This record gives sequence, C-alpha cells and structure tokens, in this order.
Amino acid sequence: MDINLEQAEAVAAAAKQKAREIGVPMNVAVVDGGANLKSFCRMDNAWLGSVDIAVKKAKTARFFDMESGDIGTLSQPGGALYQIEVSNGGLISFPGGIPIKNAQGEIVGAIGVSGGSVTQDREVAQAGVAAFK
Amino acid sequence: MDINLEQAEAVAAAAKQKAREIGVPMNVAVVDGGANLKSFCRMDNAWLGSVDIAVKKAKTARFFDMESGDIGTLSQPGGALYQIEVSNGGLISFPGGIPIKNAQGEIVGAIGVSGGSVTQDREVAQAGVAAFK
Amino acid sequence: MDINLEQAEAVAAAAKQKAREIGVPMNVAVVDGGANLKSFCRMDNAWLGSVDIAVKKAKTARFFDMESGDIGTLSQPGGALYQIEVSNGGLISFPGGIPIKNAQGEIVGAIGVSGGSVTQDREVAQAGVAAFK
Amino acid sequence: MDINLEQAEAVAAAAKQKAREIGVPMNVAVVDGGANLKSFCRMDNAWLGSVDIAVKKAKTARFFDMESGDIGTLSQPGGALYQIEVSNGGLISFPGGIPIKNAQGEIVGAIGVSGGSVTQDREVAQAGVAAFK
Repeated sequence: MDINLEQAEAVAAAAKQKAREIGVPMNVAVVDGGANLKSFCRMDNAWLGSVDIAVKKAKTARFFDMESGDIGTLSQPGGALYQIEVSNGGLISFPGGIPIKNAQGEIVGAIGVSGGSVTQDREVAQAGVAAFK
Repeated sequence: MDINLEQAEAVAAAAKQKAREIGVPMNVAVVDGGANLKSFCRMDNAWLGSVDIAVKKAKTARFFDMESGDIGTLSQPGGALYQIEVSNGGLISFPGGIPIKNAQGEIVGAIGVSGGSVTQDREVAQAGVAAFK
Repeated sequence: MDINLEQAEAVAAAAKQKAREIGVPMNVAVVDGGANLKSFCRMDNAWLGSVDIAVKKAKTARFFDMESGDIGTLSQPGGALYQIEVSNGGLISFPGGIPIKNAQGEIVGAIGVSGGSVTQDREVAQAGVAAFK
Repeated sequence: MDINLEQAEAVAAAAKQKAREIGVPMNVAVVDGGANLKSFCRMDNAWLGSVDIAVKKAKTARFFDMESGDIGTLSQPGGALYQIEVSNGGLISFPGGIPIKNAQGEIVGAIGVSGGSVTQDREVAQAGVAAFK
C-alpha cells in the first residue's frame, strides 16, 4: 500500500523531466504512506531553501491527504485552520505538494516540489504524480 | 566561488561604517554560498534580538537568491508564499538580507542586517554589498 | 567545486547496488560542499529511523571533513570531543558518513548511509564514494 | 561591564593571528556578559561544523563562568553534571571556551574557538583572551 522506491524514483524522474522542460531547477521530494521521506533530489542551481520546503510540502500533502495549497486556503487570517503551519515541525500550505494515489484510489505517498513559482511547482508535482503506476 | 573571509569582513566593515553614519547600531551577518555563517558582529547597543534576525536574513537571501524583503511581498496573507517563514528553521522575510554576487553575476554569499527600521537595515546591507570585490 | 546532481546520483546508485549485493536495505544521503542535501533515497524495507541518521552522517562527514566514525573515536566518555553530538542540531558519530573528494583532493560533498550494522553502512558508503568521478 | 565591539574584535583578531601562526583555520566566537553573540568569524577552509561549536563553547564558558573544558570533567558518566550538554539548546563541554575578565576580575564575556584539536582550540582561545584590555 506504500509507494516503493522504484515507483518513487519514477515519480521523481518525471518531475525532474518536467522541470527541465520548463527550465526551472527544482527540489523534488517523495514521501511514503507513513509520511516518511523516500526519495529526494535537488537539481543543480535549485534554491537551497527549497530543500526543506519540498520535503515539508510532501509531508503536508500526506499529513492531511490533500494538496498542500488546499491547506493554505483554510489557514488564512480568520480561516478555520489559521496558523496550522506551526504544527508538525512546520507545514507548507502553498501549492506544490500532492498526494499520490494507486489505481484503487488509496493514498500511497505524496510528492513535494519547490524551486519556482508555486504554479510551476504544482505543475512539476502534477507531472510526477501522473507518472505513478 | 564562495566569498572568502577577507571579502566578508570588507562587506561587514562597509555595513558598519554606514550604520555609524546614520547613527543606528546594527547586527551584521555574512554567509557564504552554502548559507553557512562566515562573519558576524553586533555593534554596541544594537538589539539583542537582532542577532538571530541578521543571521536569518542573510540565510534567507542565499536560500532563495533574492532579497529577504522580496520573499515578504509574496508571503502576506493571501499571497503565493503565505507562511513560508516557518520553513528552514525560521526565515526572515522583511528587508535587510541581500545576496552578494561576484563580477560574473554568480552568488557567492549574502549579507543580513538588523537593528533599525527595515529601510535602514536595507540601506546598511546595500552599503555592505557595494563594498564586495 | 560542489558535487552536481548527476555525480551525486551516480554515487547513490553505486551505494544502492552494494546494498543489494549484501542484502541490506539502506538509506543513502548525499550532501554538497555546503553540507546541504543533494540526493536521498530509502530502499524498500529500510529502517525509518535511518532517514535522519543517513542525512546526519553525510552532514557530519562534511562538517568536519572526516569520516563520521572518526568523530566517534574522539567523542567517547573521557575523550577529547565527548558529547560533540549535541552540536549542529545533532551529529552522528559512528561509521557510515564519508567525505567525497575530487581528483584534486578537494572535498565536494559527502555521503551518509544507514540501515545495517555500522560496518555494512560504511562498506556501502565506500562503494558510493568509489563511484564518484 | 560588558565587552564592547572594539574589544571583542581585538580578542578575535589575536585569536585569528594565533590560528595563522599554528596553521589551523579556526572558527572564533565572542559573546558578551549576557552570553549573546558579539563577534564571529570563520577562517577560510575552517570546518563548517565548528561554526555552531565555537558559538556554543563561548556561551558555555559564560553560562557557567568557567572554561568549557572544566564542565567536561564534571559531565562524564557517573559525574556530578552528567549529560549537562543537552541543556541550553546544547552545550560544548570540551576545551576551547574561556571567560574573558576585566582588570577587576569581573567577567565581561567569553571566547569560543573550534577548528583544530582541543589543545589547539584552547591555545587559540587563550591568545584571544590575552589580548583583552
């Protein structure tokens, strides 16, 4: 029910390929169903500060079984989950973290991408998720 | 490609000189290309709480290869990077952190300044960056 | 002077190959010259607790430009570096972390391996280092 | 009663001079009477892991108004201060941290040095302390 390393690396490879296509060096993290790190890479010239953010996006997506950006819509001032980001050693609540589901719809892990705009990050994460099988 | 100590101390000296000119005691930190601390000083009567902020501003600037204040424009409520500050053990996203580039445009480190208004902090950081060679 | 991603992944691949040969699932981390994470993988069935240990072994090796186990010989009770492990957010001072040097002898990064006995961890790390070019 | 920046930089300069004489690149930190960082430098090629250790040695020396190594004699297994190192966000209890006293014998700060053997670290720290006036 967990993503295995071969699958995780295929997801990461697809994400990296997309990052190269759009010309933005990225940090790509994949966690398993237990939200524990499975695979990580920082592409050359990708932001150093995005190591932690990519990992936290992946964890956030698996912690709550939704896209990291969905948390962000709830965590704004006045929102239902205001300041949730300080929990769990730090969450990232903007786009770029996406759960990975198997053919049965079960969540087996998540990917987190950081290095560009959040739109680019999410696009690259989606390319990774699409490569899962 | 990393800033060396002589260069870092020249950057810090220029920042301190500017701080004296405007009459505001400052904390000045310089990190290298790996975002590791290279040089730090706290001027007499400068805020104690700015030790950590100066270091975090310098790291933030190198983590994302942009001014710390640029992060802040994106991390406001409703913004693309809302709450990014909880990552990396704590970022500072207001002005005062600036990347340092060599003649080839490569980033070799960053400076972080804290102790006055953010306008003053940035002015002092800019004076430091201008002294790099 | 930093290890690039292609090199880091070749190092990690060689380490994984060795881990398969000896039949022990491992966590393998590679950091660059600034001690920032570059590549990570957790092989299927490898210990969850070794994610953090592999990363800390790699960082420890780069932090002090020596094998992590060499720190451990000095950090025993009564030793010169007793309790050094509480620094830097946690060091790992037993074998499995090794600096990676280029042909000129400059340290460009480090590998950290965790998942088996420390003898096995070090053997797998050495296989990774040997694949660097 | 606190060390001022001019004094702290004179202490650090003397320590750096000694480090150059013995040919070991060092990290040198000076804290004031409040155990807050006043001055720091990492010499070129000095260990990255010693940034944190130099600062912690200086803080340890001021926290307890004794040399960091003196704490280590009491923190061994079975000793009176066993495991004290986990307090205060991490202490360093081996040599290289020394309180700085004024002519009246009052402690006005402390120096912490890290980058060589503990004997070298202490020798460099002593050279720094000797330059205080």
